[in-house]
Amino acid sequence: MGHEVLIANEAELRGAVKLDLGVVEIVEKAFAALSQGGVVMPPILSMDLPDAHGEVDVKTAYIPGFDGFAIKVSPGFFDNPKIGLPSLNGLMMLFSARTGLAQALFLDNGYLTDIRTAAAGAVAAKYLAPGSVTTAAVIGTGVQARLQMAAAHLVRPFGRVLVWGRDHEKAKACAADIEKLIPVEAEAVEEAALAVRDCQLLVTTTPAREPVVKAEWLHPGMHVTAMGSAQAGKNEIEPKALIAADLYVSDRAAQCELLGELQHAIKAKLWTGGAPAELGDVITGKRIGRPSPGALTICDLTGTGAQDTAIATHALAAITAAGGGTLLES
Amino acid sequence: MGHEVLIANEAELRGAVKLDLGVVEIVEKAFAALSQGGVVMPPILSMDLPDAHGEVDVKTAYIPGFDGFAIKVSPGFFDNPKIGLPSLNGLMMLFSARTGLAQALFLDNGYLTDIRTAAAGAVAAKYLAPGSVTTAAVIGTGVQARLQMAAAHLVRPFGRVLVWGRDHEKAKACAADIEKLIPVEAEAVEEAALAVRDCQLLVTTTPAREPVVKAEWLHPGMHVTAMGSAQAGKNEIEPKALIAADLYVSDRAAQCELLGELQHAIKAKLWTGGAPAELGDVITGKRIGRPSPGALTICDLTGTGAQDTAIATHALAAITAAGGGTLLES
Repeated sequence: MGHEVLIANEAELRGAVKLDLGVVEIVEKAFAALSQGGVVMPPILSMDLPDAHGEVDVKTAYIPGFDGFAIKVSPGFFDNPKIGLPSLNGLMMLFSARTGLAQALFLDNGYLTDIRTAAAGAVAAKYLAPGSVTTAAVIGTGVQARLQMAAAHLVRPFGRVLVWGRDHEKAKACAADIEKLIPVEAEAVEEAALAVRDCQLLVTTTPAREPVVKAEWLHPGMHVTAMGSAQAGKNEIEPKALIAADLYVSDRAAQCELLGELQHAIKAKLWTGGAPAELGDVITGKRIGRPSPGALTICDLTGTGAQDTAIATHALAAITAAGGGTLLES
Repeated sequence: MGHEVLIANEAELRGAVKLDLGVVEIVEKAFAALSQGGVVMPPILSMDLPDAHGEVDVKTAYIPGFDGFAIKVSPGFFDNPKIGLPSLNGLMMLFSARTGLAQALFLDNGYLTDIRTAAAGAVAAKYLAPGSVTTAAVIGTGVQARLQMAAAHLVRPFGRVLVWGRDHEKAKACAADIEKLIPVEAEAVEEAALAVRDCQLLVTTTPAREPVVKAEWLHPGMHVTAMGSAQAGKNEIEPKALIAADLYVSDRAAQCELLGELQHAIKAKLWTGGAPAELGDVITGKRIGRPSPGALTICDLTGTGAQDTAIATHALAAITAAGGGTLLES
């Protein structure tokens, strides 16, 4: 009793929290912490609501060096579009890691998740993409297709973007939006193979359950970030590509083995390398990143509670600095 | 985007949500639902923060027939008293079970948990205590000692209460508070055995790890509700009492086997009865409650996510009816 909780809604968060190098830096710090000892990241609490064709996930993580820890609630109710509501929603809370008191509630409807997911793509590109990227490509035409290109551009200021999606009209709309977000020439291409062939940085952002990128399309001197697969059964990259690559990096080994691209390489008995490198290990120098300019590297992002703690910490600082949000007595 | 969330703090909730028969009724409905099919109650998400001597639990449950589901966050930071803060805190959220949209945030600092826990004691007394209770007794002198007596009094209007605690001064203060809450004569007794001997309804509310109630003290024509044990290792009632009783009832069999009084009877190989009755089964008539006026019955309450969903649903209605809380755009 008697402490204050800051409450901010989606509009306030969109105003105060931008996809910029500050966000990339704090997410990078969270990944680095994952590579150190002391992180506590319990299994996801997951509940199905079959009557409503819904599900809800709750994630959290404690990271030494962060003053707070986030708890994120992510409902997915897949009949919502029938009544004009988005399927995905959610909110994030930040609690003091010293006292457990609630500090902030972010009614973000998933916005902070979008930002922290894109920021992880930037961290992967920063440490794994070739030093010089002139053309980036993105597979998929959703929110993350746009944001991943904007995030990667912060660390590799490429001038050209190729977009491929199953629906060419959506790919064109996505390319047009990317041109508004960042100073590039963006073009929708008719074949995924063409996008892959001509780029040095590829990001896949689809919910595919069959590979959309064939191993033979990949080439030396490129980096691939696969961020669409974060669930058992999902698969964007042909599994043998993970073995053909000079380096495969997970965001969190234990998650990628179950939910990421790696699950399929393990199932197909192609992956025999044991525990893969983690992005945090590359950041802290425990593992070597890109081995040479001509190497082929792949990074598998499934999303971690550590990123949520990072973005919620950043959001509290940003909203406070902006004088936004509503303070309520608990 | 564009939906409203009701936010209420502890003071508003204390004003609008009272321990009354309405609360008992909705918690009873939740227990009855647990006995039917379709309830989804995932395992608790639990995270330790060893650096801060803290822990946080997240619970949820979906109950068919309720429009919403609660997610409850319960931090426990055990160094807080050193800096003048309570160890236990927490908040509760209510989400639509049809769309997953957040409906309400209750910054209750554990108040709603106190109320729903006491209400479960009333439900147990309603179905299991002798029809006529003239004297009730309570072991323990904390918040629940007071609330359990007030709750039980709603369904068994006894005139006398006996209180025992390890600290007799605290027992006297507790007895005085109970006299302010309900129209009874309350008295602190020097020996736990005396309190047990003279009552027809006993509630234990301690965090004991060794039994505070001996089996030989219990007698025919009484009911015992043990609500203090909700964690591995905790134990209030001598395990052989569970076997000696004419009926043992759990709130949720799977939880009591791990966290309740039952864990010790199972460990000691005294309990050989298989899955015990659940309170919901007694409410719905699937299992018989008190077998005779002279029987000895025991109910083991560990706390369920279903109660949280019930109290959060009730709180939203109560706050809305009172015109309280703050509506914020998500």
